[in-house]
Amino acid sequence: MTLPMKDQFALPDGMIYLDGNSLGPLPKAVNARLSKMVTDEWGEHLIKGWNLDDWMGQPMRVGNMVGRLIGAPEGSITMGDTLSVKVYQALSAALEMRSDRKVILSDSGNFPSDLYMAQGLIAHLGKGHELRIVEPEDVMDALTDDVAVAMITQVDYRTGRLHDMAAMTAKAHDAGAVMMWDLAHSAGALPVDLAASGCEFAVGCTYKYLNGGPGAPAFIYVRPDIVGDTFPALSGWLGHDAPFAFEQDYRPAMGIERMRVGTPPILQLTALEAAFSVWEKVDMADLRKTSIALCDLFISQVEARCPQLTLVSPRDGAMRGSQVSFAFEHGYAAMQALIAQDVIGDFRAPNIMRFGFTPLYIDEADVIRAVDRMVDVLDNKRWDDPKFQMTGRVT
Amino acid sequence: MTLPMKDQFALPDGMIYLDGNSLGPLPKAVNARLSKMVTDEWGEHLIKGWNLDDWMGQPMRVGNMVGRLIGAPEGSITMGDTLSVKVYQALSAALEMRSDRKVILSDSGNFPSDLYMAQGLIAHLGKGHELRIVEPEDVMDALTDDVAVAMITQVDYRTGRLHDMAAMTAKAHDAGAVMMWDLAHSAGALPVDLAASGCEFAVGCTYKYLNGGPGAPAFIYVRPDIVGDTFPALSGWLGHDAPFAFEQDYRPAMGIERMRVGTPPILQLTALEAAFSVWEKVDMADLRKTSIALCDLFISQVEARCPQLTLVSPRDGAMRGSQVSFAFEHGYAAMQALIAQDVIGDFRAPNIMRFGFTPLYIDEADVIRAVDRMVDVLDNKRWDDPKFQMTGRVT
Repeated sequence: MTLPMKDQFALPDGMIYLDGNSLGPLPKAVNARLSKMVTDEWGEHLIKGWNLDDWMGQPMRVGNMVGRLIGAPEGSITMGDTLSVKVYQALSAALEMRSDRKVILSDSGNFPSDLYMAQGLIAHLGKGHELRIVEPEDVMDALTDDVAVAMITQVDYRTGRLHDMAAMTAKAHDAGAVMMWDLAHSAGALPVDLAASGCEFAVGCTYKYLNGGPGAPAFIYVRPDIVGDTFPALSGWLGHDAPFAFEQDYRPAMGIERMRVGTPPILQLTALEAAFSVWEKVDMADLRKTSIALCDLFISQVEARCPQLTLVSPRDGAMRGSQVSFAFEHGYAAMQALIAQDVIGDFRAPNIMRFGFTPLYIDEADVIRAVDRMVDVLDNKRWDDPKFQMTGRVT
Repeated sequence: MTLPMKDQFALPDGMIYLDGNSLGPLPKAVNARLSKMVTDEWGEHLIKGWNLDDWMGQPMRVGNMVGRLIGAPEGSITMGDTLSVKVYQALSAALEMRSDRKVILSDSGNFPSDLYMAQGLIAHLGKGHELRIVEPEDVMDALTDDVAVAMITQVDYRTGRLHDMAAMTAKAHDAGAVMMWDLAHSAGALPVDLAASGCEFAVGCTYKYLNGGPGAPAFIYVRPDIVGDTFPALSGWLGHDAPFAFEQDYRPAMGIERMRVGTPPILQLTALEAAFSVWEKVDMADLRKTSIALCDLFISQVEARCPQLTLVSPRDGAMRGSQVSFAFEHGYAAMQALIAQDVIGDFRAPNIMRFGFTPLYIDEADVIRAVDRMVDVLDNKRWDDPKFQMTGRVT
């Protein structure tokens, strides 16, 4: 299918949406499918829906859809909870695998919640673990033989800088460390080959490039040859080998099902499953090529026409995810002024204006129009309006 | 409002639904509200919905709705994740409060997932904690001064036996233990006065008597005077004091917001919030009185007309939740035969036929009709049909 495929999305007229790296837009297939699930499944089948409509199998079924986009074999991914909870599960299992080591290695480009979850886990365990945070460019050198697990987000949420998954995983394994990837800004954004990388764990969310809607469930991957030995810290009943036997003692399921915890969020899973229909005819190599071209065009346009901004993303498309960021002293206000003109990006402290480019629904004409409006905002100092200033604390 | 209020629910014609203690039926208000949220909020506002539609505030807003039904003050409950995850949060915080003690006390009537989560937590911590499981009737005597936390489900998921919340909490506190209640079968089923009980923690789900739909989010309550000192083991970004400052170090929010973890499930929360409309005019004392009357009627009818069954629920309505259970050797098959006649209850191993009575949509005529069909199933041995037998392992 030729990109873009704007007709698959319910995009408001006139809006140029460059924030699909934060929350993907609504795929048109979602509302009818979700409404049907509510009326015909919950409404008509009630409790029988767990079997009749295979709600119980939905976390694995949708997990396989995610898997096909990121190179994970069938049955190696399950869905549920939030990305932060999945980070906790993967990280605690990884630490159990290297109980003789005390270092969790991460980088300053990791999303803060991953770091926070690690900090909470360390305090909770009270076993003297250390969260070692280095700069993104220093991770490879920091993969030393005291590292228990490298917890790395492939694409930096601020700059879009892309880590080399295969090389970093190999280096981690050389150092005897467990490799855990956060694919929040990778899944649906670029080709990923999880199986080829050999990493032990991967986690990610589905409300960004996978368009699952606000609060869509997270995913977790565990390498199939080790999943049967991994420790499930969050040992909920749906990760039990026989949930409906109601035994008094926990026995983990054999496979990735052990990373299920509680009752799956069927409404969110149904919206997400419907959102996958847009991927049926997408070629990921084509998507990646188009994504880089759109980002390159944006960079060249902004640098030519908006000298007030400074590129903070890698200039080389092969080193970037599917977003571009610029630093600007008045970035917060400028982004608000741009949003007021229906170009939607977002701001990340302290001074980053962030723009996501999703070839599914963004084309070259959108890029040009977005820069036109940015020129207007900057040249006319529209950001210097009291209504666009940050007030109070950042929340 | 007079009970029942069947017109508020989308109940299939002819079905007598006695399983609202497992999954509540669809409130009619849900589909239109959810569809509007998807189209007008996600579809039109996209990322701006977090502020414009106050998605970010929804876990607290809906938490207050739950709070009004269970006697919790404003701002003391937040929503998210699953009940199992909330059990983990409350339990780990409780253990931190009594770090000199090693015993988690529970009873065999607790839902297995609560026990599993405790087992996982104990293994994870590796600090020599013990999960001590006693019979429900022995909990009061087992509240000895080595108990760190009593983790008790108020209403037994099998028998409906009801613990005395005020008395047990007082006894736990006399023993120096922290009290944590699981209200899965209490919230929306009977009057609860959390604040008066003085318990430190409470958790529960919303897909049973609160009719939030399959996978509806869980709730967690922490007593307001202690929440600022509680330890958040799952320290996700939305529990941070300033989530959007993207600091590198976790600082918990002052109040119950610290028990938020990741991005809230807005679709599920929206369905749940819509489902709360049915409670606007319900008097909980009236609901409780009607619930007991319906259960009493069911017991007297079954005992008079179905001598094959043995009551396993408390006979005294004041000692029961909003369900009734009977033991029967062929319980599994009999329940399948009953379901085939559109009387929906459920089976809990090894031999329990379980029936929930929700006065919102069940009346005396339903009770009589349900027993009529049970008589047919039993007297005609309809359970003795191959198609109703349990096959393979219980999953």
